[in-house]
Amino acid sequence: MTRNFADRLFDAVRTKESPLCVGIDPTLDRIPATIRRRAFEVHDDPLAAGADAIGVFCRRVVEIVAEHAACVKLQMAFFERFGDAGIRAAREVVDLARSRDLVVIGDLKRGDIGSTVAAFASAYLGETDAEADRHPAVAFDAITVNAYMGSDAITPYLPLCRDRGKGIFVLVRTSNPSSREIQDLVCDGLPLFHHVARLVDEWGRDCVGDCGMSSVGAVVGATFPRELGEARARMPAAPFLVPGVGAQGARAEDVAPAFREDGLGAVVNSSRGILYAFEKRGSGGAWEDAVAEAAAGLRRALRAASRDSRGNL
Amino acid sequence: MTRNFADRLFDAVRTKESPLCVGIDPTLDRIPATIRRRAFEVHDDPLAAGADAIGVFCRRVVEIVAEHAACVKLQMAFFERFGDAGIRAAREVVDLARSRDLVVIGDLKRGDIGSTVAAFASAYLGETDAEADRHPAVAFDAITVNAYMGSDAITPYLPLCRDRGKGIFVLVRTSNPSSREIQDLVCDGLPLFHHVARLVDEWGRDCVGDCGMSSVGAVVGATFPRELGEARARMPAAPFLVPGVGAQGARAEDVAPAFREDGLGAVVNSSRGILYAFEKRGSGGAWEDAVAEAAAGLRRALRAASRDSRGNL
Repeated sequence: MTRNFADRLFDAVRTKESPLCVGIDPTLDRIPATIRRRAFEVHDDPLAAGADAIGVFCRRVVEIVAEHAACVKLQMAFFERFGDAGIRAAREVVDLARSRDLVVIGDLKRGDIGSTVAAFASAYLGETDAEADRHPAVAFDAITVNAYMGSDAITPYLPLCRDRGKGIFVLVRTSNPSSREIQDLVCDGLPLFHHVARLVDEWGRDCVGDCGMSSVGAVVGATFPRELGEARARMPAAPFLVPGVGAQGARAEDVAPAFREDGLGAVVNSSRGILYAFEKRGSGGAWEDAVAEAAAGLRRALRAASRDSRGNL
Repeated sequence: MTRNFADRLFDAVRTKESPLCVGIDPTLDRIPATIRRRAFEVHDDPLAAGADAIGVFCRRVVEIVAEHAACVKLQMAFFERFGDAGIRAAREVVDLARSRDLVVIGDLKRGDIGSTVAAFASAYLGETDAEADRHPAVAFDAITVNAYMGSDAITPYLPLCRDRGKGIFVLVRTSNPSSREIQDLVCDGLPLFHHVARLVDEWGRDCVGDCGMSSVGAVVGATFPRELGEARARMPAAPFLVPGVGAQGARAEDVAPAFREDGLGAVVNSSRGILYAFEKRGSGGAWEDAVAEAAAGLRRALRAASRDSRGNL
């Protein structure tokens, strides 16, 4: 029996002494120009060139942030954008991250039902009984999912979360401004995201690990600290994947309500603030140094925030 | 300026005299054994073998259904399941379908924001200003999207829908049993899906083609006929992509409320009922004949249903 995902995730948080998740969202026009130029010299096909360039950049980023972060999150759209070459690039980044003891999350934000979920699970978690079993396309530890379609979109994942060491993070309250339009609609006296949170809590009950947290987690943005606290109260056992820090405007201290009293309970994602930290420097120094410093700095700030929360909650 | 997506879609419906959309959801263990065996003889790598097998099957299905259907919808999970080889297989199926004058919909059910939407649009609609512009990974005419994150997840697509001949179908009321859990929660006196429908109607206002329909459409299941009629009333200009007929239990006549008085307004998807029609036959006859008959039969039934609705609405 494989170790529970929540146990693995928070082992990584404890071992690395860091609740940091580095978001790998590579955009071709923001990666260092030398990497981009070299790739476009080597390849005629623009999709192959683009995939090569982002692959080189992301693998280097993974090497740099491995000592500062518990996990990385790949936003798959940025890889899919380069077709089959992009999928190969993602697989190489994932394999490298796993070899560096990083927990690897696939940011897919998909929600579908029945046999389609089985196909997703095969593709991105690699744990089903299909003919090509154990040959995932990209082997994530956990993926993000959308619950708009209801339990049919979630329950097929639960055996993988319970028995096979995999995890899911359900979108509950996202960090973007217009998340209010739907997620805050008041249904039966409570905002919609509270109803989704209640379902997440129910779905995760049979998937709790030794650490007391479940392998069914939630995406809850840092940009709305009050809602973050409400979500924590409603889903006491759900690991939170918290976006919104950095480029989206939230500060490290805003995430305090996501943590439990023992300082565990959440990983906090920053993508552009770390990946493109070198843009702020102008031409001075190696881009790698800026990335390392940004990761180390955010890790320090997040550790302080998670310690604060021990006293406050 | 490219022709409006809704105009192209309903041109295809009129030309083919068919509101049928054939869902391409290939599962390895259900495709004809001869195709599967041959692929696994040729390839050592199980992902390459699987992708080859589903590619052969799906291209043959596209050839067969081209005369009966206005469009095809590829459920991408079934291709992604085979990694980079699966993406190549999908691209070949899409290119073939376009060459047969089929409108091609990518069933991705994704919902994300900002630069991630730009990456999706590059990957699957191929119309952005990125460096690798005009080199989509897979060139769909339209994709399905999830609006749980609000307008931020939708508005980046609207310029493509307004000016570049592309379309989106927003999940509004899905066909699965547990869709009620979230989509029917009553907010301000109305089920949640009515609120999403209102947003779809607003998003689509600047994207209306000569046919009077918008290139911003909606996914509304046939399994709940009353809700289908409510959705039509709330989104008069939205093309409907209607799943749920066949394997999921709805009958062709259940979709009547989706059509406008002129008999246009919707395309109706059937996946397994057509793809695997040969399973019901036992060993008699070619599998291709069963697929052709199933497509022709459903087309007849849907034409009758769309004519009915002209009088009833």
